[in-house]
Amino acid sequence: MASTPFAGVLVPVLTPFTRSGAPDAGRFVAFCRWLLEQGADGLAIFGTTSEANSMAAGERMELLDRLVAAGIPPGKLMPGTGACSVTEAATLARHAVGHGVGGVLMLPPFYYKGMSDDGLYAFIADVIGRVGAAALKIYLYHIPPQTVLGLSLDLVGRLIKDFPDTVVGLKDSSGDWSNTAALIERFPGFAVFPGSEVFLLDGLRKGGVGCITATGNVNVPGIRKVYENWRTPQADALQAEITLARMTIQAYPMVPALKRIVAHFHDDPDWAAVRPPMVPLSAAQSAALLADLGKIGFTLGDKRREAAE
Amino acid sequence: MASTPFAGVLVPVLTPFTRSGAPDAGRFVAFCRWLLEQGADGLAIFGTTSEANSMAAGERMELLDRLVAAGIPPGKLMPGTGACSVTEAATLARHAVGHGVGGVLMLPPFYYKGMSDDGLYAFIADVIGRVGAAALKIYLYHIPPQTVLGLSLDLVGRLIKDFPDTVVGLKDSSGDWSNTAALIERFPGFAVFPGSEVFLLDGLRKGGVGCITATGNVNVPGIRKVYENWRTPQADALQAEITLARMTIQAYPMVPALKRIVAHFHDDPDWAAVRPPMVPLSAAQSAALLADLGKIGFTLGDKRREAAE
Repeated sequence: MASTPFAGVLVPVLTPFTRSGAPDAGRFVAFCRWLLEQGADGLAIFGTTSEANSMAAGERMELLDRLVAAGIPPGKLMPGTGACSVTEAATLARHAVGHGVGGVLMLPPFYYKGMSDDGLYAFIADVIGRVGAAALKIYLYHIPPQTVLGLSLDLVGRLIKDFPDTVVGLKDSSGDWSNTAALIERFPGFAVFPGSEVFLLDGLRKGGVGCITATGNVNVPGIRKVYENWRTPQADALQAEITLARMTIQAYPMVPALKRIVAHFHDDPDWAAVRPPMVPLSAAQSAALLADLGKIGFTLGDKRREAAE
Repeated sequence: MASTPFAGVLVPVLTPFTRSGAPDAGRFVAFCRWLLEQGADGLAIFGTTSEANSMAAGERMELLDRLVAAGIPPGKLMPGTGACSVTEAATLARHAVGHGVGGVLMLPPFYYKGMSDDGLYAFIADVIGRVGAAALKIYLYHIPPQTVLGLSLDLVGRLIKDFPDTVVGLKDSSGDWSNTAALIERFPGFAVFPGSEVFLLDGLRKGGVGCITATGNVNVPGIRKVYENWRTPQADALQAEITLARMTIQAYPMVPALKRIVAHFHDDPDWAAVRPPMVPLSAAQSAALLADLGKIGFTLGDKRREAAE
């Protein structure tokens, strides 16, 4: 493999929108730069937390163009290629590979339900064929809560076997630890990322390579501490701290809550905007969320770091 | 309203693909023309049966361009605008309205689950605002088996109230007769189409205006007979006949089965091709399906008509 495989704490980056509802490239670039400064090992832009499927393919490609033009290292990027058609998924993947990204995060086609493993295999194989580039590194995206259609262990095994240099990892957002553990056990050398930091320590102990987690948008340093210290006696206490932060935030609708936190700590109210079908937190929800975070002493990573310096 | 509202038997048209996997505009135009000759009251192109979400937006728009250029009357067309982003849904709807279509069939955004009525309302209102054309006539598309996210009666009522000249009807593919009946009862003058001919007669008796049904691709004349004769003593027997045909076909995966039937009766094997994540019927399934249809004396509409003449 030419590219360095991903490992560590990856962030599915929130997408800011302007007051007129367009993706805000300026804020996006600044936020991606800040996340890398915070210690993020990679940026899984255009995932579920990014409201990527609430943007047209052209809007996503333009944001990627802007990121790369602004000097964000493409090797740190793992753009999502979420699409229901092989043509659009291939267009997004080809565009990303053209920018030299470290990999792409590939959703299965998510409109039809009850599709067979053969059909899902055909979709991914077709996209690989259409892209036709050895530089393509695919991280499969297993997220049945949204797709209502999973990637079975058999299907994953078949893809690894037939495309060993292309299908190199998986993000498991099933929330089902037994599935994550089975993936790690069954496919040694395959990069498995739990989709939540709640499973970070368990994953690392089992042979996982890190996590790709929504709350990374507001807590890279805390999550990185578990990643850096997972073999030390402090590991469980550090894990308990980030699990508590996660649980506090996910008591609210996740994406609007994260955007509200960013808006608050970055003193930038417009960051709270979401695209339909999501709705922003109400004023009461926002106040309750910030109060809950205050109770556990939560601040954004950089502020915590500044306080320690 | 400037345009004539739809009523009767509408067909969500199958999309043919070439051997290289591209949408086949030539076959598509010919098939649409044949369906209208068979008596279809409208063509709901780019729906679930059309594998529309397995095509990029550009592919769908090009097919619509080709249909209109070939002389298919735009007033007979109800293109689907299925998309998860307001931007793409608006692009598709604007393009369709620009061609003077009779209406569009609008899916809710289907990636995220558990979205609120407020969020779904905001999505549809945003699309209407972005299109900004009085000629836009929206038929809502309620199909929880695929979207896993429904359009509640309250949401439908709110949309009708706020956009009375735009939100004019609904296709109910829930398969839940009580929901269809409730829609008809609660919203007089709103055009409710069951998504299956199984509910055609019940729907008409209750105040529905027809049906939009996948099996219309192979049985317009049979279904039209129920529509034309629903007040006659033959109605129940005619309904039983089309219900039997439907049940026979839907014992197989619907879209591949319908394409197999078209391939067989039109003597055109390439028609059987589907796009991933769907897979064609196996040889054994194909043989069994055709045998099952033979047992009930099923033939394509035009052949039946020829035999009667």
